[in-house]
Amino acid sequence: MQNYKMVVQYDGTRYNGWQKQADTDNTIQAKLEGVLSRCVGEDVDIHGAGRTDAGVHARGQVAQFRLDEARDPEEILAYMNEYLPEDIGVLSVTEAAPRFHSRYNASLKHYRYVIGTDKAYHVFDRKYVYEYHDVPLDVAAMKMAALYLRGEHDFKSFCGNPRMKKSTVRSIMSIHISETPHDITLDFFGEGFLQYMVRILVGTLIEVGQGKRSPESMPQLLEARDRNEAGPTAPPQGLTLIEVRYN
Amino acid sequence: MQNYKMVVQYDGTRYNGWQKQADTDNTIQAKLEGVLSRCVGEDVDIHGAGRTDAGVHARGQVAQFRLDEARDPEEILAYMNEYLPEDIGVLSVTEAAPRFHSRYNASLKHYRYVIGTDKAYHVFDRKYVYEYHDVPLDVAAMKMAALYLRGEHDFKSFCGNPRMKKSTVRSIMSIHISETPHDITLDFFGEGFLQYMVRILVGTLIEVGQGKRSPESMPQLLEARDRNEAGPTAPPQGLTLIEVRYN
Repeated sequence: MQNYKMVVQYDGTRYNGWQKQADTDNTIQAKLEGVLSRCVGEDVDIHGAGRTDAGVHARGQVAQFRLDEARDPEEILAYMNEYLPEDIGVLSVTEAAPRFHSRYNASLKHYRYVIGTDKAYHVFDRKYVYEYHDVPLDVAAMKMAALYLRGEHDFKSFCGNPRMKKSTVRSIMSIHISETPHDITLDFFGEGFLQYMVRILVGTLIEVGQGKRSPESMPQLLEARDRNEAGPTAPPQGLTLIEVRYN
Repeated sequence: MQNYKMVVQYDGTRYNGWQKQADTDNTIQAKLEGVLSRCVGEDVDIHGAGRTDAGVHARGQVAQFRLDEARDPEEILAYMNEYLPEDIGVLSVTEAAPRFHSRYNASLKHYRYVIGTDKAYHVFDRKYVYEYHDVPLDVAAMKMAALYLRGEHDFKSFCGNPRMKKSTVRSIMSIHISETPHDITLDFFGEGFLQYMVRILVGTLIEVGQGKRSPESMPQLLEARDRNEAGPTAPPQGLTLIEVRYN
């Protein structure tokens, strides 16, 4: 048995998300497993570090798989990039320690959400930006609200899975918000995120920026532990998994 | 009469080029004129600095138009970006001197051609890169050949219009070629270019990189003044008009 680590990027626009599903093979995981299994001549399971939702992109998704027979990682890399569609690219394949697991061992995930406020400037990256054309956003208020969300909290109010039975406690290292005349970028750094969590955080921060919520209402919202109290789930196209780090 | 200057960017993928055509309104110029004419309530002609071909992109195309009645440039800008499709964006509209002409007054045009050599790295900009998967290119030889092409020459061998009656003498200030492990970028700076000229230059430089032509054969190719002696016209998707400068 040989364990491998793979770094993958994809334009998620036309996929039903990362995760394999019974009723469709139109997922990133299924595409990768299909090509990899043909490459090595055995059925392979690929485990991703972050299970990105339908329409969400990745520039540095990390995946991991085991093979019964060791293969040259460079050969796997070349084969996969030859046969994968042009909106999925494998950036590297390397041998990994036997116990390495892409999800359980991840120490930091970086997700970026881009809100476009001037579509003329997003002609070339328009599929990777959420174009927002409502009232102007108060970015200072959004930054203040983000400070309350940083740290370890029960993020149940920001969990999109109503049937979540495991702990909804997560730790956000930082939320960095920056602004240009054409867009607002929100960078989230954390060990791990709940389903839809980043997009619900963005949807809630947009409501803060609109003046519909105060930054100071964030602790109360966390305490509510109720998805209905948070803002809407922001659209998927603005979200990209940038990087997964390991210790 | 008030004269205006407009800076436009577009993803040329789904358009039949810049220039208005009798048999289709699927051109950038026609789209811009349609929206602008509705905005100002008079028929407007828009003149572009560079008549980009079908499938070619622009990040800084400059266009110019005259209105019978002066209008607020900011209002024109906002209207156009509201009604233009998302693959065309107007970056600015400003008042111009009465005699300003976007094409005749241009002192420098900058075109960029990107040859991708590793498609895994071009997932997000795959529509703006020509993916090349033939024999590896000798970039040093391409750079040497480019030196012979710099300066004022009769570029008839590189002119895609067989019925061209006017002078085919043009001046190239510089051709800058750079390389990463994933792509080769060719930047062309010149006062003006003939039809398909940049793409025929790229197609010819690729043949130099493949060893099919020597850098030293460039002077002879220029002297031939025969389109059949040059290389093929490189595909449009790799080409972008980056900037037009005026003195």
